[in-house]
Amino acid sequence: MTVGVDFSEWVCPLPLRDYPNVIMGHGGGGKLSAELIEHLFMPAFQNNLLETLGDSTIVTVPQQRLALSTDSFVVHPLFFPGGCIGDLAVYGTVNDLAMSGARPLYLTAGFILEEGLSLSALGSVVERMGAAAQAAGVQIVTGDTKVVEKGHGDGLYINTSGLGVIPDGVHIAPQNAQAGDVVIVSGTIGDHGMAIMSVREGLEFDTVIRSDTAPLNHLVAAMLAASNDIHVLRDPTRGGVASSLNEIARSSRKGILIDERKLPVNPAVASACEVLGMDPIYVANEGKLLAIVARQNAEAVLEAMRQHPLGQQAAIIGEVVEQHPGLLVARTGIGGTRIVDMQIGEQLPRIC
Amino acid sequence: MTVGVDFSEWVCPLPLRDYPNVIMGHGGGGKLSAELIEHLFMPAFQNNLLETLGDSTIVTVPQQRLALSTDSFVVHPLFFPGGCIGDLAVYGTVNDLAMSGARPLYLTAGFILEEGLSLSALGSVVERMGAAAQAAGVQIVTGDTKVVEKGHGDGLYINTSGLGVIPDGVHIAPQNAQAGDVVIVSGTIGDHGMAIMSVREGLEFDTVIRSDTAPLNHLVAAMLAASNDIHVLRDPTRGGVASSLNEIARSSRKGILIDERKLPVNPAVASACEVLGMDPIYVANEGKLLAIVARQNAEAVLEAMRQHPLGQQAAIIGEVVEQHPGLLVARTGIGGTRIVDMQIGEQLPRIC
Repeated sequence: MTVGVDFSEWVCPLPLRDYPNVIMGHGGGGKLSAELIEHLFMPAFQNNLLETLGDSTIVTVPQQRLALSTDSFVVHPLFFPGGCIGDLAVYGTVNDLAMSGARPLYLTAGFILEEGLSLSALGSVVERMGAAAQAAGVQIVTGDTKVVEKGHGDGLYINTSGLGVIPDGVHIAPQNAQAGDVVIVSGTIGDHGMAIMSVREGLEFDTVIRSDTAPLNHLVAAMLAASNDIHVLRDPTRGGVASSLNEIARSSRKGILIDERKLPVNPAVASACEVLGMDPIYVANEGKLLAIVARQNAEAVLEAMRQHPLGQQAAIIGEVVEQHPGLLVARTGIGGTRIVDMQIGEQLPRIC
Repeated sequence: MTVGVDFSEWVCPLPLRDYPNVIMGHGGGGKLSAELIEHLFMPAFQNNLLETLGDSTIVTVPQQRLALSTDSFVVHPLFFPGGCIGDLAVYGTVNDLAMSGARPLYLTAGFILEEGLSLSALGSVVERMGAAAQAAGVQIVTGDTKVVEKGHGDGLYINTSGLGVIPDGVHIAPQNAQAGDVVIVSGTIGDHGMAIMSVREGLEFDTVIRSDTAPLNHLVAAMLAASNDIHVLRDPTRGGVASSLNEIARSSRKGILIDERKLPVNPAVASACEVLGMDPIYVANEGKLLAIVARQNAEAVLEAMRQHPLGQQAAIIGEVVEQHPGLLVARTGIGGTRIVDMQIGEQLPRIC
């Protein structure tokens, strides 16, 4: 299923022989593999490092403290309002690096293609990965392609791994949350998950819900410029804000208390959640972050966030407390409190 | 299909609730995901860095020239004589790093699980990955798990990405082959591909053909200790020796001339190839390397290789020439010559 995508926009730089679709030979390490790399991947990911075409790539990094991250992407459908699997694959790993305070530099890309995938769909995804890498300021420097028989994949799975450099003086980790710190969210929650869900379920709302997929590294850089004493950063993807804050509470052995009414939620997302019986606090985001910051730096960080396009709706939603260590507690709309546990499984499978 | 594997050997350190098989919730980022990480992955990959459990891991590296590599593994069947997908996933990326002369240090691991995969099979694979990492002297420092519905995978796909440090004075790249250099192979060819093929086709030979999957980084270190003026290293995986030498000929714009009679081939592999109408020069290896070395260093390098368990059958098989740039030419058994081109697709799909 494709949404709002015009494959006719994608033009193969050179005809990939006469195969319009992926065939097993594209994964065989022979001429077809070489053609796929040369005519489809290289034009999209263009950079000097990739052009060495070795099994690995040599990079030179200016500092010694590095962040390493990996993520596989199996989102279904491949294209959805606001993005595609290619955007997620680039921004997902860029964001994981940024959440450790690292400046992301290099990505690897591993593709598992299902026999029969149209080369124009693949070309379109790869082109968007190239554009996403440019937007995030990273380079895709090495890659790998495998092909599996029809019925053993779902069009296209992508793994990206990333390498970033952590600036001196930055020490961000989930266990660093301290009692008294405030909890900030960078914007509305639940957009990505509900965008995917709306497409899958064929739901129509007055306004189309778009994924929020975006690179957060520039926002993080702006926040660190305002204060490099940020304790924790986390992008609440699978499992949403609830899972991320639970993980932080457990890692830091502190309690987290939030005010549900302060969580920004787009009206369309709120309606969709109501229709589907979902709670936006558990729904995945792909372009939002949670920050835990000492109270005295919170205003400076919040101000820096609001000046950035991806942080205009940033808000303080709660605080870190000594009470109920390991637990996330929410003040509800009607004035009570409830424990917000992690879910056992998933509300939405294959969301990223 | 499983071969020579006793899953009963694998004991889950703590009961993973009462699910014997992977369910969608194991990919949801909730409690089931957390349990899978804590009770299945962590015990196998045990190291301090992994235990931070963030979305990325921070590593400190001693030098600045780094090698980055990625590979996805979709081998079918998951277990075969001599190894399993887990060994391949670790050694494959270790070897790709080693082929740039790097000392491999850190790996990432990304899993795409198919709903219904037995947790004991997964546990067994992961345990062998841990053992393989130890054998290679690397650490698996961060990971990711996704689950796809039954019918959209094939049990288990693994991506590994790796980071290594390139020692000073080492400059290994496919374009560095020079006329007059000799071509060395570290041992018998075709073992991995024919091991997989025999299992798939249910072929029986007098002796079981075993995959040669092995970590080549220690062999490379021994070779570099003998001479750090090694021009090219390549592990001839998909597409075999033929594809690797073709790629080197193209990258270096030199010709490569080999003597087919000097290629070491196990008798059982030779028989199997004959039965199946295959040429071992195109068959995948997972624990062999090709080295291109200046003639004056060849004996020293060869000697160092033969003293290493993985290089005992190392042999000079040919030379780099000015003639026929970009082409691989073989002297045949009957005294003629033939051009050995890359194949268009694959002889054996899903070999790694």
